[in-house]
Amino acid sequence: MNVDGKKYRTIWLAADGASVEIIDQTKFPYAFEIVKLHTMEDAAHAIRVMQVRGAPLIGATAAYGVALAMRADPSDDALHAACFALLETRPTAVNLHWALDRARKTLIQVAPEIRTEAAFTLANDICDEDIAINMAIGMHGMELIAAIARTKREGEPVNILTHCNAGWLATVDWGTATAPVYMSHDSDIPVHVWVDETRPRNQGAFLTAWELGHHGVPHTVIVDNAGGHLMQHGEVDIVITGTDRTTATGDVCNKIGTYLKALAAKDNNVPFFVALPSPTIDFSLSDGVREIPIEERGGNEVSQITGRTEGGSIETINIVADGSAVGNPAFDVTPARLVTGLITERGVLDANRQSIANAFPERVKVSA
Amino acid sequence: MNVDGKKYRTIWLAADGASVEIIDQTKFPYAFEIVKLHTMEDAAHAIRVMQVRGAPLIGATAAYGVALAMRADPSDDALHAACFALLETRPTAVNLHWALDRARKTLIQVAPEIRTEAAFTLANDICDEDIAINMAIGMHGMELIAAIARTKREGEPVNILTHCNAGWLATVDWGTATAPVYMSHDSDIPVHVWVDETRPRNQGAFLTAWELGHHGVPHTVIVDNAGGHLMQHGEVDIVITGTDRTTATGDVCNKIGTYLKALAAKDNNVPFFVALPSPTIDFSLSDGVREIPIEERGGNEVSQITGRTEGGSIETINIVADGSAVGNPAFDVTPARLVTGLITERGVLDANRQSIANAFPERVKVSA
Repeated sequence: MNVDGKKYRTIWLAADGASVEIIDQTKFPYAFEIVKLHTMEDAAHAIRVMQVRGAPLIGATAAYGVALAMRADPSDDALHAACFALLETRPTAVNLHWALDRARKTLIQVAPEIRTEAAFTLANDICDEDIAINMAIGMHGMELIAAIARTKREGEPVNILTHCNAGWLATVDWGTATAPVYMSHDSDIPVHVWVDETRPRNQGAFLTAWELGHHGVPHTVIVDNAGGHLMQHGEVDIVITGTDRTTATGDVCNKIGTYLKALAAKDNNVPFFVALPSPTIDFSLSDGVREIPIEERGGNEVSQITGRTEGGSIETINIVADGSAVGNPAFDVTPARLVTGLITERGVLDANRQSIANAFPERVKVSA
Repeated sequence: MNVDGKKYRTIWLAADGASVEIIDQTKFPYAFEIVKLHTMEDAAHAIRVMQVRGAPLIGATAAYGVALAMRADPSDDALHAACFALLETRPTAVNLHWALDRARKTLIQVAPEIRTEAAFTLANDICDEDIAINMAIGMHGMELIAAIARTKREGEPVNILTHCNAGWLATVDWGTATAPVYMSHDSDIPVHVWVDETRPRNQGAFLTAWELGHHGVPHTVIVDNAGGHLMQHGEVDIVITGTDRTTATGDVCNKIGTYLKALAAKDNNVPFFVALPSPTIDFSLSDGVREIPIEERGGNEVSQITGRTEGGSIETINIVADGSAVGNPAFDVTPARLVTGLITERGVLDANRQSIANAFPERVKVSA
């Protein structure tokens, strides 16, 4: 999307045709810095220290990492070693595994003398595919927003609430939950986004607010506590969030707090949609609350926060009384009964087994 | 309550019998400092800069402020002037108005030569009455906790979730929502409190965690987003919050985010109780969502936060992307249908007009 009028992806082939460039996301929201990846080690480092984050972007970076490795040494051994090294950076990331598996299986069949070019082509394809999926999500989601806009007075914005960052910074471009927002905005449908701060880690206030602001989308940052009150008073027309994992029955596992917003939406007849690329659907799961283990992360994500002082320095401060225990469950599960619909690349689906299976019959067969 | 084994109130007559001492709450949670109030101006300053906060404590401080003024000059003119000056410190605080009105009407009937002593007695009475109310709330609420404890294995704690600070620091002693907790803990009923961080202003992580910790009550600080997930997994036995204002029908206006916890409690069959001294009931209101105007406070409460660096200095940092608008509704309304019961000084009431009117018939008559 745009950063102050200039178009960006989160990762791209550099002008020299041989190295890759990324936006250093560890510097957000206080600096916008581009980092050049020259080697596979650079790519692995970028994933490891979270200069890139978000499942699709991690996968794309890994694919480019393989290409950079092939440029240095296109041998079979180097290919296997690169895939192994990159997988080690964040071993639980599903897209990382998927991208590296695809790269290995594809490139091993390609002769070493043309392997580098094939690897760069593959990485580029993975990026383009991510963008195509997100644009399809954006088109389907935009129809929902456009339908609400038609019920409004001329110029009155559609108020969209989102939680966490399912934005273009987590993908190659467009994002998932944000794709319908950007597409509506770019199509002159007036939108305004309520951005949940999203404690802990504050991805809403740090990332979603940054990317919406730099693309020029009107938005307001609120604390996570505020959404229910806004819905009670008609200030939210639609909720759109992302998801980390979705069951075959439409339960949605997403950043902690998503469930509370879904409850408030239900209580106030506000439609609650979840935007997702179909790879996040896990057809082996049918009861999200019971079956999905929730990661308990370190308490320092809650008790410490980093920001900028008035003097301009970046400081980390403690914000919990000394000696108190801290709990930090990272995700929660929103049961399908609270989900109005799933916005996928194949259209908007009801959040139930039949509707999801109808849209992705090939996936059901594979896991049956 | 106790601070590291020593009993405190939030305000008390100093050992010299002529001045008043308070805990400086602007220093929380990083320092525990006692401030001496020698004059009415000292008391006004303490209220104005929020060295004292919480409706009951503000009222008590104002009453002591009048007494300090009388010690300097017990004339009628000085009495009126003191009440006027103290009311100006936070003109919208209901308890402040109530305490000063009572002081003025009582003391004007007392001869100036014994007015100082009468004023100190009145301030002391106001403190004792607050404590008596909170202890009654504590006794009634402890019965609820004890009933849950009886369903548990020996030694297994009752898990109580609370939001914001309705603790002893907001009152003279015991607090409202915390009174049942302290009383249970002191009676050897094992309790554990989930303390919502409570964005913005973080009264949970700063104040509730501090006071529970220093009294020795087991507790865990969580982000406001986490409570729904914990309830889904049986980790919360009861929710107890405070309230700033309660309608005659049992709707509860409290710190923003309370409504979301009430929705999650309902969805998971967790009892949701609100502890309140009856003065917070406004018998002129019957629909909280429609009738109670919600204060929109400054965005800097959301975009800035103060805490302690690793080096020990207190710093204020910015935590929202530059240029983003910030919204900050301070309260929300939890409809009575989500409230299991109201814990008052006269017992636990159903959250409906009939039950409340039956318990406080003299209040209904007054406002009818």
